[in-house]
Formats: sequence, structure tokens, C-alpha cells
Amino acid sequence: MNEDRAIRLRLDIAYDGTAFTGWAKQPGIRTVQGELELALATVLRRYGDAPMLTVAGRTDAGVHATGQVAHVDLSPAQFSSLVDGNRGKTGGITDGPAGLARRLNGIAGLTGDVYVSAITVAAPGFDARFSPIWRRYEYRIADAAARRNPLTRNHTVWYPTGLDRDAMNTAARELLGLHDWAAYCRPREGSTTIRTLQEFSWRRDAQGVLIATLQADAFCHSMVRALVGAAVSVGERRLPGQRLVGIRNAAQRTSEFKVMPAAGLTLVEVGYPAVAELAARANQTRARREARGVDPLNVGSP
Amino acid sequence: MNEDRAIRLRLDIAYDGTAFTGWAKQPGIRTVQGELELALATVLRRYGDAPMLTVAGRTDAGVHATGQVAHVDLSPAQFSSLVDGNRGKTGGITDGPAGLARRLNGIAGLTGDVYVSAITVAAPGFDARFSPIWRRYEYRIADAAARRNPLTRNHTVWYPTGLDRDAMNTAARELLGLHDWAAYCRPREGSTTIRTLQEFSWRRDAQGVLIATLQADAFCHSMVRALVGAAVSVGERRLPGQRLVGIRNAAQRTSEFKVMPAAGLTLVEVGYPAVAELAARANQTRARREARGVDPLNVGSP
Repeated sequence: MNEDRAIRLRLDIAYDGTAFTGWAKQPGIRTVQGELELALATVLRRYGDAPMLTVAGRTDAGVHATGQVAHVDLSPAQFSSLVDGNRGKTGGITDGPAGLARRLNGIAGLTGDVYVSAITVAAPGFDARFSPIWRRYEYRIADAAARRNPLTRNHTVWYPTGLDRDAMNTAARELLGLHDWAAYCRPREGSTTIRTLQEFSWRRDAQGVLIATLQADAFCHSMVRALVGAAVSVGERRLPGQRLVGIRNAAQRTSEFKVMPAAGLTLVEVGYPAVAELAARANQTRARREARGVDPLNVGSP
Repeated sequence: MNEDRAIRLRLDIAYDGTAFTGWAKQPGIRTVQGELELALATVLRRYGDAPMLTVAGRTDAGVHATGQVAHVDLSPAQFSSLVDGNRGKTGGITDGPAGLARRLNGIAGLTGDVYVSAITVAAPGFDARFSPIWRRYEYRIADAAARRNPLTRNHTVWYPTGLDRDAMNTAARELLGLHDWAAYCRPREGSTTIRTLQEFSWRRDAQGVLIATLQADAFCHSMVRALVGAAVSVGERRLPGQRLVGIRNAAQRTSEFKVMPAAGLTLVEVGYPAVAELAARANQTRARREARGVDPLNVGSP
């Protein structure tokens, strides 16, 4: 596709990850990217090859999202088909990107567990994967002190013991900042494990459910679930709070805590800079990648 | 069973109604009562016949509960088996009613979509069905103005248009009080349709989801979903708000609104009087039933 003429759309997406094997497309397996690209192909099939999605956070199997972001590049023919290519079918002019969201949501296979909240023409320089300045996740645990609710069991882990929120908060706060997180990451060939953890805090909601909020420029693989697991060990008094910094500084994987299950994890928001900064941020991120020959921010799967 | 010697337990229960054909036991069909009584039978099988559950709100197929209440009468042999009958199995003395809740939750078939939050010895005079002074339900609608979240789709109805919350609130408020609700009830042979609607209000949560709260001494069959449907018609400006009182006063079923689907409805709490009033309240309710020859408060299924 001629990049100069392509029209980039931004997709805001929410999904219940329970019945998906993660975001990333895999042959013969139900994934969020796979289902969405199939739906796009259905809508655009008369106007060239189905376009591909580029995503902010490549979530693992079972991980959810309420604030996932992706982009897709459409050819002029594909884009204009959204505006006036479907008069015969719909009996009227569809309203471009917003109409595309409605049509994707109406396609079988997407009804219910994945929902396209919005589709808009992307701002100049926008890149869903390389422009973000932060990703924010939440992790939900109904411990022994919480009211367990079967209605939210799809995105809340039920934990058998009581957890000390204050101890978890203190330990979490000590971890913040720019560090090497190798001890909390599943290693990936050539990927850096240096990240800035901007927020890691624990609260209880009205039902007593413990909710962790974690925000970083990017997360390496399994990092959120590892950090949550380490904090849970502190909350159970199986690990002293200070030990979390010690583990991180040792930069070695350890068996002192368990990585928590995917079901409790939700990508809630992706932060992008102001429009004027979008392209510069994307170029900076891409340049870092090229300097290493691999992608330091091939984050997702946290 | 000798009533004098029976020990009555109160069960607090939560469930996702999606995969249940309602509360009430039916042969060959998965119901909440059926699954719970089967689990009770498994735990108590060596100590006589499985006891039966009596419930505060007989919810319809697909309706959820976070605050359902039931009672069960155990024989002395069954009750004492909970305290000391299982040493061999568990390696220690189980802690009576609380231990029973843990054991029920551990039985296959109950994991996940139904959860026994608590089991306690009932206060004297307590009757889950006849002692309540009110039942409270919530109904959740993600209209066009709300953020739709696949994670909560099991208990939230997605509505295609935008709804005027203020108009719905005004109309709802006008309905409160002691009235004949025949226009909003599915008729049941011999059942009264006179009820006191104590609360009917609409709010939006942080995601913009419309949440109705309805409280009454008791609801007749399909009453909550009918009232919500009537309010939705007002919110869509298909019906003037004052019409809801007019419909009620006509005491005739009408096609001016639609009964809303079960999936949005959750029984959130059942109110009981102070302990000293429990028996009097139950006797009063039972006396009313006997005077009519049928059960005026065979509510549930709202």
C-alpha cells in the first residue's frame, strides 16, 4: 500500500479475554486480532485485501481489556467504501469510521465478548504501538475479606486467604521508577527489561475486592502478573515487603513468588502524547528498536 | 422432621443466573435450588434425607442475585455431623455452618456461577420467605450514552438508543406507594397484585451505565422487568412520563411498553426486621396467605 495515500484509523476496543487465546493472531485459534481482522475482511472484501491491525498491548491468553487501542491502514478505495460504498446494502450513506464500528460489532463472532467502542480517523503521526507514553493495567483479587460475586468472576481472581493491603501498598510503592525488571519478566530474546514503573497501588472497592493499578511506559512479558504475585506474597506475610526491591535488584528470576493467573488482569487504558508529539514519540520508539535490531517495546503479554 | 428439634440455618447466596433456568427446582433442568440441594445432599448423605431450601426471592431464568437468602432445616443428626461428623475426612473438626458453606462451594457444579457467601444459625422466628420486610433489585442498562463493557455483559443489557435518565426518574418517583400493580404483573391464579413500591430510581455509574434500584415489600411476577420496560419507554420518549401512573391505575396489561430481558436484573438485598419482629412478621405473612388460600407473597420471579 502507498503509505502516503493510506488512511489510518484508530480503534478503541474492549474484550472479555476468557474465550480468546490472547490478542495475537494464530492459525486455527480464536484470538481477538483474528476475529477482528476476519470481521474487517468481511466488511471490506470487495475493496482489496483485508488490512491488518497493529495494537498497543499484545495481551496474553485470558487477559482482558477495556481500553485496548489498535490502528489499521485503509486504502483510499477501502476508506471511501465506508462512506458511500454501501448505499445498496444499508439504504443510506453510512457514516464512515463510526459506521464501521457498528458494522464490526454486528458481525457474528464479535457479538458479546469483544466490542469496538469507537473508530476514528487517527491524528497525524499516530501509531497505536509506538506512540504510547504509558499503559495502565488493573488486577482484581477477591481475597477472604472481600465479598465474592459470581457476576464478576470472569475478571476477578478468588484468593483463599486474607491479604494485608497496607503491606502490599508499601512494598509496591518502593518499586517505582526506572529499573531493570528482569527478575519480574519472562525473558524474550533481545528484548530489554528496562522500564519505568510509574504507578503500582492497591485499593479495595465497595465489595472489598482488592484492585491493583499498574502503570508503566511499557511492560515486559508477564511483568504485571509477576509484580502482582510478589505483592500477594507480601500481603500473605510469606515475603517481607522490602524483599521485592531486593529481588528486582538481583535481576534474576526467583521462585519466591508466583505469577498470578491471567483472568484477574485487564488493560484499562493506553496513554498517548498530545497530537504534536505523536510522530516524534513513535519515531523515538522505533529508533530504539532499530538500534537493537529487535523490539524493546514489544510489550503486551504482561 | 420434628420441628421442635430442627436447627434452621440461614444461607446467603450469590449467583450468575445466565446458565440457570431460575431458582426453583425442576426435574432434569439446571436450577440454583437444584444444584444447591444436590450439594447439600452430597455433604449430608449419611445423616438422613437431603433437606430442602426455602428462598426469599424465586428468581426467573436468567435473573441474577448478589443478596439472595434461603433457609434450610437440619435434623440434630445432620447439624451435629457438620461439627464433628467429618473428622476422618478433613483431619479436624469442621466449624459447623461456616464450614458447610466452604464445603458446598467446593462441590463440583457449584464452582463459579453460584457461591454461598455465608451460612449461619438463623435467629429465632427467622423464615427466609415469610419474614422479609422488603426485597431490593437492580437493573443495568448500557444505553447509547454508556461505555459498553464486555466484562459485565452477563448482567447488563445493551440498549441501542440513548435514554433520558431525568425523565425516567421523574416517572419512576410518581409510581411509589401502596397500589394494585396488576398492569405490571404477569397474572397468577389467586395471587394479589397489591404491593408497596418503596423505591424506584435511576442513576448512572462511572461508565454511564444506567442502574435502576427498585424496592418493595414484595414484587409480583415480572413486575420489576415490566416497570423497567415502562421507564425505558419514557426514557426513549415513546411514552409520556405521566402515562405510567395511568397504566397502573387502569389495572390492565398493556402493549405500550415491553418487559425487559432477564439478564439485566439482579436481586441485591433482602431486608428482614429486627430479631424480635422476625416471628411476628412471618406469622402475619403466613396468615394473609391462609386467608386467601394461596400465597400472596409468592413473589420471586420479578
